[in-house]
Amino acid sequence: MYGLIGKMKVVPGKRDELISILIEGTGAMPGCLSYIVAHDAADADAIWVTEVWESQQSHQASLSLPSVQQAITRGKPLIAGFGERFETKPIGGQGLGTRP
Amino acid sequence: MYGLIGKMKVVPGKRDELISILIEGTGAMPGCLSYIVAHDAADADAIWVTEVWESQQSHQASLSLPSVQQAITRGKPLIAGFGERFETKPIGGQGLGTRP
Repeated sequence: MYGLIGKMKVVPGKRDELISILIEGTGAMPGCLSYIVAHDAADADAIWVTEVWESQQSHQASLSLPSVQQAITRGKPLIAGFGERFETKPIGGQGLGTRP
Repeated sequence: MYGLIGKMKVVPGKRDELISILIEGTGAMPGCLSYIVAHDAADADAIWVTEVWESQQSHQASLSLPSVQQAITRGKPLIAGFGERFETKPIGGQGLGTRP
């Protein structure tokens, strides 16, 4: 498995809009086992996205999906910058979706 | 929802053992919607745990479960320290388990 933990800074006032775009655009991605979008508890203009994929290849391939491309185009103007980013290799636990 | 993203430093050579303890001990926690344990991709002695709970209360309550208490007791000697820790408020996405 391949995992990403990343923080985005959001243009002030646009957090909810960006989150909606991210959630809508990522609903049916082959090889995606978990994709969770969250508020940062301490910063009203920051969000976290945690992702688990079958492989780094399935993550890479998702970036070419029309729905993801559209989400990137719509979401980009709402992103003020990127914060911490960690790559992981998930091993197990709860909430890893079955393979599509 | 309530979320945690946290890094642990592991006693060298004990990573797999700690991960097994964490995964086994957290298999049936009421209110837990996601609990994923991962290697850090860059540090062989570090792991990440990402968690999503129905509420902060359900997370707090889990710490009293016998299985979790036992995992804490067994895992503690294998933990060398704690790294980054972020609290979040998950909003949505893929891989959020149904309520038990």
